[in-house]
Amino acid sequence: MSGAPFASALYQGFWHDPRTGTLFTDSAEIRAMLLVWGALAEVQSEEGLIPDLAGPAIRRAAMEAAIDPGALSAQTARNGVVVPGLLEAFRAAIPGPEHRPFVHWGATSQDIMETGLVLRLRRALDLWEERLAAILETLGALARDHAETPMAGRTYGQLAAPTSFGAVAAEWGRPLLRHLDRLEEMRPRLLVVSLSGAAGTLSMMGAQGPRVRAGLAARLGLGDPEASWHAERDRIAELATWIAAVAGSLGKIGEDAGLLCQSGIEELSGGAAGASSTMPQKRNPVLPAQLAALARHAAGLSGLLQEGLVHRQQRDGAAWFGEWLALPPLCMALGRATQIAEELCAGLAPDITAMRAPLETPPGLIHAEALSFALAARLPRPEAQQEIKRLCAEAAAQGTPLADLLERDHPGGDWTALTRPETQLGDAPRQARAFADHAAQRAAARG
Amino acid sequence: MSGAPFASALYQGFWHDPRTGTLFTDSAEIRAMLLVWGALAEVQSEEGLIPDLAGPAIRRAAMEAAIDPGALSAQTARNGVVVPGLLEAFRAAIPGPEHRPFVHWGATSQDIMETGLVLRLRRALDLWEERLAAILETLGALARDHAETPMAGRTYGQLAAPTSFGAVAAEWGRPLLRHLDRLEEMRPRLLVVSLSGAAGTLSMMGAQGPRVRAGLAARLGLGDPEASWHAERDRIAELATWIAAVAGSLGKIGEDAGLLCQSGIEELSGGAAGASSTMPQKRNPVLPAQLAALARHAAGLSGLLQEGLVHRQQRDGAAWFGEWLALPPLCMALGRATQIAEELCAGLAPDITAMRAPLETPPGLIHAEALSFALAARLPRPEAQQEIKRLCAEAAAQGTPLADLLERDHPGGDWTALTRPETQLGDAPRQARAFADHAAQRAAARG
Amino acid sequence: MSGAPFASALYQGFWHDPRTGTLFTDSAEIRAMLLVWGALAEVQSEEGLIPDLAGPAIRRAAMEAAIDPGALSAQTARNGVVVPGLLEAFRAAIPGPEHRPFVHWGATSQDIMETGLVLRLRRALDLWEERLAAILETLGALARDHAETPMAGRTYGQLAAPTSFGAVAAEWGRPLLRHLDRLEEMRPRLLVVSLSGAAGTLSMMGAQGPRVRAGLAARLGLGDPEASWHAERDRIAELATWIAAVAGSLGKIGEDAGLLCQSGIEELSGGAAGASSTMPQKRNPVLPAQLAALARHAAGLSGLLQEGLVHRQQRDGAAWFGEWLALPPLCMALGRATQIAEELCAGLAPDITAMRAPLETPPGLIHAEALSFALAARLPRPEAQQEIKRLCAEAAAQGTPLADLLERDHPGGDWTALTRPETQLGDAPRQARAFADHAAQRAAARG
Amino acid sequence: MSGAPFASALYQGFWHDPRTGTLFTDSAEIRAMLLVWGALAEVQSEEGLIPDLAGPAIRRAAMEAAIDPGALSAQTARNGVVVPGLLEAFRAAIPGPEHRPFVHWGATSQDIMETGLVLRLRRALDLWEERLAAILETLGALARDHAETPMAGRTYGQLAAPTSFGAVAAEWGRPLLRHLDRLEEMRPRLLVVSLSGAAGTLSMMGAQGPRVRAGLAARLGLGDPEASWHAERDRIAELATWIAAVAGSLGKIGEDAGLLCQSGIEELSGGAAGASSTMPQKRNPVLPAQLAALARHAAGLSGLLQEGLVHRQQRDGAAWFGEWLALPPLCMALGRATQIAEELCAGLAPDITAMRAPLETPPGLIHAEALSFALAARLPRPEAQQEIKRLCAEAAAQGTPLADLLERDHPGGDWTALTRPETQLGDAPRQARAFADHAAQRAAARG
Repeated sequence: MSGAPFASALYQGFWHDPRTGTLFTDSAEIRAMLLVWGALAEVQSEEGLIPDLAGPAIRRAAMEAAIDPGALSAQTARNGVVVPGLLEAFRAAIPGPEHRPFVHWGATSQDIMETGLVLRLRRALDLWEERLAAILETLGALARDHAETPMAGRTYGQLAAPTSFGAVAAEWGRPLLRHLDRLEEMRPRLLVVSLSGAAGTLSMMGAQGPRVRAGLAARLGLGDPEASWHAERDRIAELATWIAAVAGSLGKIGEDAGLLCQSGIEELSGGAAGASSTMPQKRNPVLPAQLAALARHAAGLSGLLQEGLVHRQQRDGAAWFGEWLALPPLCMALGRATQIAEELCAGLAPDITAMRAPLETPPGLIHAEALSFALAARLPRPEAQQEIKRLCAEAAAQGTPLADLLERDHPGGDWTALTRPETQLGDAPRQARAFADHAAQRAAARG
Repeated sequence: MSGAPFASALYQGFWHDPRTGTLFTDSAEIRAMLLVWGALAEVQSEEGLIPDLAGPAIRRAAMEAAIDPGALSAQTARNGVVVPGLLEAFRAAIPGPEHRPFVHWGATSQDIMETGLVLRLRRALDLWEERLAAILETLGALARDHAETPMAGRTYGQLAAPTSFGAVAAEWGRPLLRHLDRLEEMRPRLLVVSLSGAAGTLSMMGAQGPRVRAGLAARLGLGDPEASWHAERDRIAELATWIAAVAGSLGKIGEDAGLLCQSGIEELSGGAAGASSTMPQKRNPVLPAQLAALARHAAGLSGLLQEGLVHRQQRDGAAWFGEWLALPPLCMALGRATQIAEELCAGLAPDITAMRAPLETPPGLIHAEALSFALAARLPRPEAQQEIKRLCAEAAAQGTPLADLLERDHPGGDWTALTRPETQLGDAPRQARAFADHAAQRAAARG
Repeated sequence: MSGAPFASALYQGFWHDPRTGTLFTDSAEIRAMLLVWGALAEVQSEEGLIPDLAGPAIRRAAMEAAIDPGALSAQTARNGVVVPGLLEAFRAAIPGPEHRPFVHWGATSQDIMETGLVLRLRRALDLWEERLAAILETLGALARDHAETPMAGRTYGQLAAPTSFGAVAAEWGRPLLRHLDRLEEMRPRLLVVSLSGAAGTLSMMGAQGPRVRAGLAARLGLGDPEASWHAERDRIAELATWIAAVAGSLGKIGEDAGLLCQSGIEELSGGAAGASSTMPQKRNPVLPAQLAALARHAAGLSGLLQEGLVHRQQRDGAAWFGEWLALPPLCMALGRATQIAEELCAGLAPDITAMRAPLETPPGLIHAEALSFALAARLPRPEAQQEIKRLCAEAAAQGTPLADLLERDHPGGDWTALTRPETQLGDAPRQARAFADHAAQRAAARG
Repeated sequence: MSGAPFASALYQGFWHDPRTGTLFTDSAEIRAMLLVWGALAEVQSEEGLIPDLAGPAIRRAAMEAAIDPGALSAQTARNGVVVPGLLEAFRAAIPGPEHRPFVHWGATSQDIMETGLVLRLRRALDLWEERLAAILETLGALARDHAETPMAGRTYGQLAAPTSFGAVAAEWGRPLLRHLDRLEEMRPRLLVVSLSGAAGTLSMMGAQGPRVRAGLAARLGLGDPEASWHAERDRIAELATWIAAVAGSLGKIGEDAGLLCQSGIEELSGGAAGASSTMPQKRNPVLPAQLAALARHAAGLSGLLQEGLVHRQQRDGAAWFGEWLALPPLCMALGRATQIAEELCAGLAPDITAMRAPLETPPGLIHAEALSFALAARLPRPEAQQEIKRLCAEAAAQGTPLADLLERDHPGGDWTALTRPETQLGDAPRQARAFADHAAQRAAARG
């Protein structure tokens, strides 16, 4: 157990998604802030707020400056925020001393940090979307290929009624489609600049303030919120809950995969890989367990970020610092979860014989509902249900096929035919194929 | 402390919102399920799945049946779900015995419970939307009326820079506008029927299954999900996080109101009302404190519902029961929070003299940023900032106005003019009015 | 889904533990506060703080007063606390008007509410302790009876190595023994009076204050904290986390029982009882699922109460109200969990044939570790482990007993003897019996 | 925002406590596991389970082996646990090949990892205890020095009644004393070895198993749990909630300090230090805000670890991995919180003039309770309270001292004397001194 699971070298392969991780390094954070300062200065030069030459010079310097994160640590600690120290270091790195005063003109720390954060989040969202698309492609293929592969539906861990493996794959994938819809809705709200100055009023930019904000947004390819959002944390909370929801839906895939891999069930393999230090036979389903763990962790962190909405006054140190503690690990968790889910889904290998077994093995109680409906052609349904219940008890006690007992007591029905899995899939194949189509359409639309 | 805060007679006025509460009573739950059974039977008669007369008869009975919740308690406990007991009681209440078998044809408990839940949630969403609209109207009026009422912006509890009370009201209201946008996006996802039978395949309805589901949706005015969502809990999680986010944004209003009501600050009143049992002078800001408490409670419950996404297989008792424990109190929490926020906002009385005081009382350090920018016309900005920092220390130690010290050391600037609050509001008035306009447009669109 | 799951008539049998519930009704809350007022007045009469006759008169009235909770609702809502309204009603109910002013002399609302709460918690702790003792008795018996009943140990859902069902029962019970130890440690901290007046200083009782507090404690059989604890919420947080931990340990029993009841595993029955509305064969393990749900719910609520430690100044409305929302449902959750666990454990029926099956069914990979250690007498252990790993793959592919393959390649070992379950239980029987002894000693000590 | 706040170079000074951090590095984790292997082998040699020379050789190698964490990452990821890869690397590092097979004899990964973790936690607990002792020393001194320094008690952010700053310091410190008591109770439960083999039965160590476990415990200075605790996570949950509770009590100090530092209140300084990037006057109370943020973060993580009690079967990958994600950051959070609290408390500078001000400034409503009790010598208390309430309203409206109005309407009382702060401190000075004595006794006992 490392103090920082997402940054441990020992657990790097286990917890760390390098592609998400690269967006949440110290240098990525600094780089993004420099970029914001550069763009801001350019806009401010154009608007005449700072000298004509200052903007371009600052922008160039922002692209070139190499600043050592560790050297800023002491000042960051003292000020409670990176910006004053970074500003000093950046100014010192600008070749023309005459331009230095014009960095950060009229902005406040939170403006720079959060616009920089949004730039990084934009890339993270793109990455995760790409991963979800890949997972959907895999699940779509499973759903199509196994649309008619019979399998036991299970509720409360008990055999319920037949379904198909394709329908199960669709059940895993449909929430991801909806999460992608939510992502589309969230993006324009989240991907906006923050620029509003010390108390949210942009007062140091005078009448040009709103134009500068709009210009900065345009230059960075972000939206213009047209107001301050320093103390309005619904954007962050929405992101956090979206992340946790995606992680949760992936966690369900993990849980289901783990249960289907269980010794004694073994309808699925592919997630199982972990060797034991002492048991030679063990192939632990590590990836499924990780998905479930990441999902719960993400849910907990997202609850904390929901609380962050109770952000006091025009800036609340405690609430803001709380976001710094919770949001990055949350992003790292989803990064790793998407990576694992992609790997897990790609490797899933259904054992279609094992899947059929609970549908064909006596006493075949999983067909009780179907038989009760068929018997309802002869008896009122509640009585038919009671009758089948009685026969289920007998069948279970003796291991006799339920259909045989039914034939014995209610001869002349084609009872056994109703226990052929293929005939009992209901809407499952259609649902599987419909999902596969949606997943394919989504992929085509992304093209 | 009652065991069920939202159901205590003693705390009824304190925690219970009757309009939300009425949707979450036992009888509302039963009523909604009967309604679903009635509509389902009608559709199934039309589709020829059950006898022609059964549907209308069941529907009529569903409207008339009076079923005692308490009488179902034992069966509910035994089965882990209300439906079997309620089904038995409902069947008994149908006048024509020949129709009784055809209730709940091919459906499963979860179908009926959750479609019924969605019907109730639809009304809850309407109610909360109406309340948010009323709050927005009040905040819009405050924002417009006080667009230019100067007030101290505070960060970390410290005076930061001037803003206006209207801008603060806008800061409270803007997240609510976005929450209403999110509500619009969420509705079509959430407000759908659940109808998919024992294992999600609708197999007992044969080929007509999908048509029955579509028909049920049409009849109830809900959407057709075109698939099972028994084990896909993203809809519920989305609702939960939306609720918690709204509660959180209202909680911020409460926290800010509480802080502005503090003894020694007293810029706001109206939220203060609670009498003490022993201190004659006390007027405790009870409503603000409740809002903050409800926000945190909602965040915690929403975290639990996010975890519910890790829902195992085709139905997971533990995960489902967990929703039963968390979702209703979450709804009750938001119901009460919207009610309180409406009352609190309507009663808020800003003391504009008290609001000005920190802007006009020596040493006036809140104007330090403005003065430093003005001084930056004479010195490079970093040096100007250092110079002002030095003068701030002196001003604070002596209680001298900062502008006077500046005039002493840098004579000839119109420094004092920069400490007139009206000149320092920056973009605050515009932001306040823009919010007021948006709130008004939203109201008109709903009109 | 009722708005208040623990108070719904419909779900009464499902969620409501009547014995815990009776401690968290409105009338129990009022009754406890009256009791505190009565005791306080008596002590104050003895100390000469109020007239000699006032104390006894108030105490008598406190025993007799019948106050309607609903009638206090409006005042409770206005004041944010029950006490002012209840005080008025109680005073009116005291026969001698001359005594009325002396109720609540020098106390504050929180004193009365929380001392009353502690009185109720004392009874709740006794109840839960009694239930845990009953559960331990059952688990002790299972552990003793099945100390040598072979069963598969499972890790990551995979067969790991043999254990005994008695050892599993011990694993369920040992944490409960430790929770009882923690309970003993917690009691003297938690079960103390609160009496410190408006700002924690008892100033209205003059020099007698500390003596009055000590006297009240003595009279109520509680401890004297010797200071105010209005704003020190560690006692409440400790209670909350203890509750959640007990619920969590019971939740593990539920989860394990649910997994062992699974179709295809079926090593345990007794927890399975729930009927389906549509599937005649279903016997859903409802109690196990409830235990797991209650455990997670309790964990979430306890996290909220941990946050309540950040309680501002001398009383923090928001933090305090947050406790009112979270603590009672938490108590109700544990009440129900202990009740369910008692019922579930009493009904658990292990199927010892089913338990043996995974230990005796080819290919018997569960014995791989034991075989590898035996083979390590011939080869260095890492090589033995590699060799067994190789043979496991072959055994799994062909369904051949692993021991047979070992005999083929490394003849002359008594390999098959090592796959006899009885020989492979290791320390399990001893651990089971040691637990049974501890449970019995605990029961005897309680005697 | 770094992806791993506790491991960022940029935020090192802000979030990272080096002394806690050093216990949660990769190399500390590896070192501790090697130490466990070494001790285990020695005990096993003594017990004759492995060759005589193997134990000492393994132990020596364990002290000398230098293993690169990064090199183990791939295997850790594949196996879901560090041990198999580390075991291989460690074996290779043992000079005598003949000893290599005897490392990890009969143990399982979890045994080694968790015994190693416990060794590290032991040191962390010592460190945190030392820090809490230092904080208590400071608070004890403040309590003693300011036992009679008058200050306003505040409830709901409103002036309530007088107290002393020493009493407030005592209120901050008393929970810490109780947390130290809890620590003493927790230590023997938590600080135990884990040694129970693959399925908790120690079967590969034969009859010697329990003796080996006892021997390992003795050698490491830890307790012997006398059973497996692989799946009994109450020890970890207890630790987690203890950590969060301590963090919460420190968070209260932070919140209170932040509120007392507020502009317009300013009764305390010393916590304020953070410079703004744009506002020259700002001295943000960074440390208090960090304490509050860490407290909430810790509460959230502890809720997750409480859920971990629902640990399935004999080992639950998902639950265990969840601990890996939550426990180390939780430890890091408390490490930093204790460090900050120590610094904050040492620097707290009360402004005793500012503290007196609200007690002496007209209208002096904070004395209303005292005046009402005094007036109760003339009128029944409820009427006296009503009368004072009336006068409070008048006093507030006019700014007249409440005592003057009382003299006007009820002449002849020494009303003004009752508004002298010194006379109104009640039990506060005694509570402050009693706490100071307890803190001093605790320090002496530790001596």
